[in-house]
Amino acid sequence: MTAPIGAKRFQDDSGLEVEFGGRLPQLEIAYETWGQLSRQKDNAILLCPAFSGHSHANSHEGDPSPGWWEGMVGSGLAFDTEDYFVVCASLLGGSYGTTGPWSVNPETGEAWRGRFPVVGVRDLVDAHIRLLDHLGIERLFCVAGGSLGAMQALELGVRYPQRVRKVFTASGTDRTRPHTAAIRHVGRQAILLDPKYCGGDYEGNGPTDGLALAREIGTVFYRSREELNQRFRWQPIAEPSRGGTVFDVQSYLRHQGQKILGDFDANSYLTLSLAMDLFDVWRGFPSRESALEPVEAEFMIVGVDEDRLIPIDEQEWLHHALVTAGKRSHWRPIENHIGHDWFLVEIDQITELVRELLK
Amino acid sequence: MTAPIGAKRFQDDSGLEVEFGGRLPQLEIAYETWGQLSRQKDNAILLCPAFSGHSHANSHEGDPSPGWWEGMVGSGLAFDTEDYFVVCASLLGGSYGTTGPWSVNPETGEAWRGRFPVVGVRDLVDAHIRLLDHLGIERLFCVAGGSLGAMQALELGVRYPQRVRKVFTASGTDRTRPHTAAIRHVGRQAILLDPKYCGGDYEGNGPTDGLALAREIGTVFYRSREELNQRFRWQPIAEPSRGGTVFDVQSYLRHQGQKILGDFDANSYLTLSLAMDLFDVWRGFPSRESALEPVEAEFMIVGVDEDRLIPIDEQEWLHHALVTAGKRSHWRPIENHIGHDWFLVEIDQITELVRELLK
Repeated sequence: MTAPIGAKRFQDDSGLEVEFGGRLPQLEIAYETWGQLSRQKDNAILLCPAFSGHSHANSHEGDPSPGWWEGMVGSGLAFDTEDYFVVCASLLGGSYGTTGPWSVNPETGEAWRGRFPVVGVRDLVDAHIRLLDHLGIERLFCVAGGSLGAMQALELGVRYPQRVRKVFTASGTDRTRPHTAAIRHVGRQAILLDPKYCGGDYEGNGPTDGLALAREIGTVFYRSREELNQRFRWQPIAEPSRGGTVFDVQSYLRHQGQKILGDFDANSYLTLSLAMDLFDVWRGFPSRESALEPVEAEFMIVGVDEDRLIPIDEQEWLHHALVTAGKRSHWRPIENHIGHDWFLVEIDQITELVRELLK
Repeated sequence: MTAPIGAKRFQDDSGLEVEFGGRLPQLEIAYETWGQLSRQKDNAILLCPAFSGHSHANSHEGDPSPGWWEGMVGSGLAFDTEDYFVVCASLLGGSYGTTGPWSVNPETGEAWRGRFPVVGVRDLVDAHIRLLDHLGIERLFCVAGGSLGAMQALELGVRYPQRVRKVFTASGTDRTRPHTAAIRHVGRQAILLDPKYCGGDYEGNGPTDGLALAREIGTVFYRSREELNQRFRWQPIAEPSRGGTVFDVQSYLRHQGQKILGDFDANSYLTLSLAMDLFDVWRGFPSRESALEPVEAEFMIVGVDEDRLIPIDEQEWLHHALVTAGKRSHWRPIENHIGHDWFLVEIDQITELVRELLK
């Protein structure tokens, strides 16, 4: 529940009214930067973290540990620090240094915990905008992200049309469908089922068993059937028992569940999971046409054929909505057995796509 | 945890050595029948229940409540009682009157609960065979089932090749792949996470919250994305909250979870879930060829394009394995938006297929 060690901090005391009601009196934002902002301040790229991401997108001098998009940011890389000033901020509602359920509510002097307001992707983007204002960046050269990061990138491109020139989204959507909400629902239920959840007002790490199971459930959808079937043995690896590990895919899932603990807070999990379910980039606009009318950015929409969480037809649909509205959009369907999380894994492929959009 | 009210009972005291070690000293089998066994005893059809099924496949005079395959068994229906003697037995390890974790172990005088042995689909079929022996049925005209029922039908056709003429399987597989095992694993974990599980040695209904969540997780896979997206609203139906119901698809899932309670025992859930994960019809044979060599039955293999639990390529693969081995098999791919559970819903379509095989 701490910011990455290389993170800078920005505090905004003007408060934020959040989309579904409630107000955060103060925003603290943890962020990292790579490269130099040009004199014209026209070379900034904002990277938007996915669900379990944070400001540490890539290693740098201040923090040599690998980032969540390691190999994407640096001299000669996709987001080339010879040319661009790259910014990445931890998410509002998350556990990595930006205001979230673990932060102290200055009005009560206590951590928010279960009383942290429900936030939407719109609020996550509003926090990014506050940071951009602070850094003096009026217009981004590009905003980029995958999954929840793609939702932020799209939201920024649509709701702040004058503030970005290029939008890169992978494994995203324009609005969450009921089936995806059903998947996230069962993950959240695992946390709520843990007796240590206590309505969100737990001390310490709280419902770690539920959080681990939520992550295990998510993992089943983040990776494709093909990948799991190729990677793991089809035969039992141990004497079968109802409570034990019988197949090595179970060990893998348990490992994924355990990895999240101590780092990612259960209230943050619930908060960001619900933010994704509530995502609808068209909400509040009279029509899609009016939402897109002022949009100026050039888009690249990437989808993966084996995505089981947000299937590729949703990305293709978004591309067509943009083109129908007369916007510039490049549709890049990818064949890859990894599935939804592809953009975190296949760095060479995604580098090529990013370069194509940035050039 | 009781047999359907119209069930007959058969008790076998010869004991059953189960596939993964252990012995059941006694088998009690709850079953129902429809129609009349012919003098030659050559018109019997065995219906194999799916995971949450039981002996009550269809309503009849002794129990007018709808069965799990209601509309399939009766005069003029798919399994026509003018021609056939239809048998359906509750599953070994389940909660519906056949020996399972709720049964008393005669050697201890106490319910088995968490000490019920791990059973495989092979053991479920061996219990069916004991019943067929008891009824004097040497050779079935047909064995039929969907999902776990399909596994039983296939296992019976392969391991008892002289005992069946026709095998009908829908939404089945020949062996469980790691991805499907991953899905079932997270369901079982929900039960294990419930503090009322107590290692399986609970009193009363035990871990009902975990069991309900396991069922909710399963439901996400039993139905297709297309169905959920068409059926439910895409907008919140209530003010968003982390613990509450925000979308109507959540109400649906909760309802599915609650429906299973009081009826289906958590230890049975774990037992049959693991039995499916452990299913491998080829286990113990030196090769697929040698497994199939003595097989005499004519097969119909049905798969549904939107099946997210056991995708259609597994059913197609099974059909090809049969044909490659020189067996008679009819491959019937179905386009249907329901997904895995299609065979329980589209009675008209499945009736047509069953009639084609039986004629």
